[in-house]
Amino acid sequence: MFFQIIDILGTIAFAISGVLVAMNKRMDPFGVLIIAFVTAVGGGTLRDVMIGVEPVSWMRNMTFVYVIIGSTVFAVLFRNQLKHLRRSLFLFDTIGIALYTVVGIETGLIAGLHPIICIALGTMTACFGGVLRDILCNEIPVIFRKEIYATACILGGLTYFILREFLEDRNYLFVIAGLIVILVRLLAVRFKISLPSLYRKEE
Amino acid sequence: MFFQIIDILGTIAFAISGVLVAMNKRMDPFGVLIIAFVTAVGGGTLRDVMIGVEPVSWMRNMTFVYVIIGSTVFAVLFRNQLKHLRRSLFLFDTIGIALYTVVGIETGLIAGLHPIICIALGTMTACFGGVLRDILCNEIPVIFRKEIYATACILGGLTYFILREFLEDRNYLFVIAGLIVILVRLLAVRFKISLPSLYRKEE
Amino acid sequence: MFFQIIDILGTIAFAISGVLVAMNKRMDPFGVLIIAFVTAVGGGTLRDVMIGVEPVSWMRNMTFVYVIIGSTVFAVLFRNQLKHLRRSLFLFDTIGIALYTVVGIETGLIAGLHPIICIALGTMTACFGGVLRDILCNEIPVIFRKEIYATACILGGLTYFILREFLEDRNYLFVIAGLIVILVRLLAVRFKISLPSLYRKEE
Repeated sequence: MFFQIIDILGTIAFAISGVLVAMNKRMDPFGVLIIAFVTAVGGGTLRDVMIGVEPVSWMRNMTFVYVIIGSTVFAVLFRNQLKHLRRSLFLFDTIGIALYTVVGIETGLIAGLHPIICIALGTMTACFGGVLRDILCNEIPVIFRKEIYATACILGGLTYFILREFLEDRNYLFVIAGLIVILVRLLAVRFKISLPSLYRKEE
Repeated sequence: MFFQIIDILGTIAFAISGVLVAMNKRMDPFGVLIIAFVTAVGGGTLRDVMIGVEPVSWMRNMTFVYVIIGSTVFAVLFRNQLKHLRRSLFLFDTIGIALYTVVGIETGLIAGLHPIICIALGTMTACFGGVLRDILCNEIPVIFRKEIYATACILGGLTYFILREFLEDRNYLFVIAGLIVILVRLLAVRFKISLPSLYRKEE
Repeated sequence: MFFQIIDILGTIAFAISGVLVAMNKRMDPFGVLIIAFVTAVGGGTLRDVMIGVEPVSWMRNMTFVYVIIGSTVFAVLFRNQLKHLRRSLFLFDTIGIALYTVVGIETGLIAGLHPIICIALGTMTACFGGVLRDILCNEIPVIFRKEIYATACILGGLTYFILREFLEDRNYLFVIAGLIVILVRLLAVRFKISLPSLYRKEE
């Protein structure tokens, strides 16, 4: 139940982020809808396909489909109001990756996979919808370098498996891991922290 | 039988469209073959993988493989004659998306999925081979905005499920849905109709 | 056993090639790790997903994960020494595609697929990790045209199935096929051989 609610919240957040990028690319309504779909379910689809959960989640649960269509219609209708929320795109995105990281880890645990694989699945669920959105919109997928992004997901995932030694309740673990993802990303952007790039000088 | 024939016709149409794009990118013969393959089976592969039909269709049916190799050899040998067919690239593409939309819907119905998911599968089958072709050829995947494209597939799919209330015979339904896709796309290009973009003015 | 060792060697070669590209793109450490992963397991993941081997190989065998993490840490720590190996990027890549071609063919054979499909799986395993790396790093996926690349894999695969008529021992077949891939690629680059492009003159 708790698991399903956060899944839906993440879906809304990502769908709206997809709508905003697609509208800025001057797409037509159906193009916007497809980008909203890809952004919202892309990461989870990749995850499901790689562990063999098929048909993939969103095909077996019409809730996701209605939520994405609803979010898209909402975002399109109130697009001029959303402009005041321009900076909120960042916040939506941040909540989305936190929620999806947790969903990805949970899916990995259910499939009985190794903690490292679960963290990889969480990161994949969180980040690859946005990567696919950027590739389809012909944007550079900045995710891997411009900001702390995947790093926040990986740290959230590590937190989950470290705290699991001390905490019993999965729901608490998920909430804490999600908050770590949000916190890491917000702090990183607020204080312009980023990991040093590993660029090799070509002396 | 009918189902298989339209699948093969769509495969030929898409393979040739892939050959034409790849040759314009000055690829070598094997590069051209790979792009022909990706264009022809990319959308269907994505569909099969997402609903769990594995090994994917083209691996279990050598007909597709021979048809793609044959179409590629044909298109390469007669490439100078094909130049007179330059505008035919558009027609091939249009027939291809109509046929693939129908195949995608059928696959979704066989898997017992919801009508909305079936329409999504039809659109995916029709459009994502071309999207993958464009990404691999480093072209901007124009599909989502330049012309009515995905929109035609979605309208064809909707027609299918609306008419299903009144018509029994699946073959008729498929033919009508396919013709709707072709008609919508031809009319849209002929009369330069496109859906309004949802670009937000940044006043 | 033999099969597993070459799989691991290919993984190391590709992971390091991914690290080098990602570092040149000034990615942060986790970005570099993700690109190393995608490069190393991308082609095999695509192969596994398309034939229905799920969860995909690297999720069921932590060896791959540790090998990739280890190779990444090694390549990052010794990045200044690796600069002297700059031309080795090419060699790593060549060994990698030879090994992966063989692994892909073997996987297809185990799944009981047609020789042509096995060759396609070998080529896919070898080439698509690099294609995904290039797409994620916003590089043009040069693979299909700049150099003999996929062509070497296809020729190696053809050699395997032709020699199979005369040789019993699979290990010998794999070694010979792999050497053909390496030889074709090295000779092509050494003597600047490339297949003629099929560009159509637009007289």
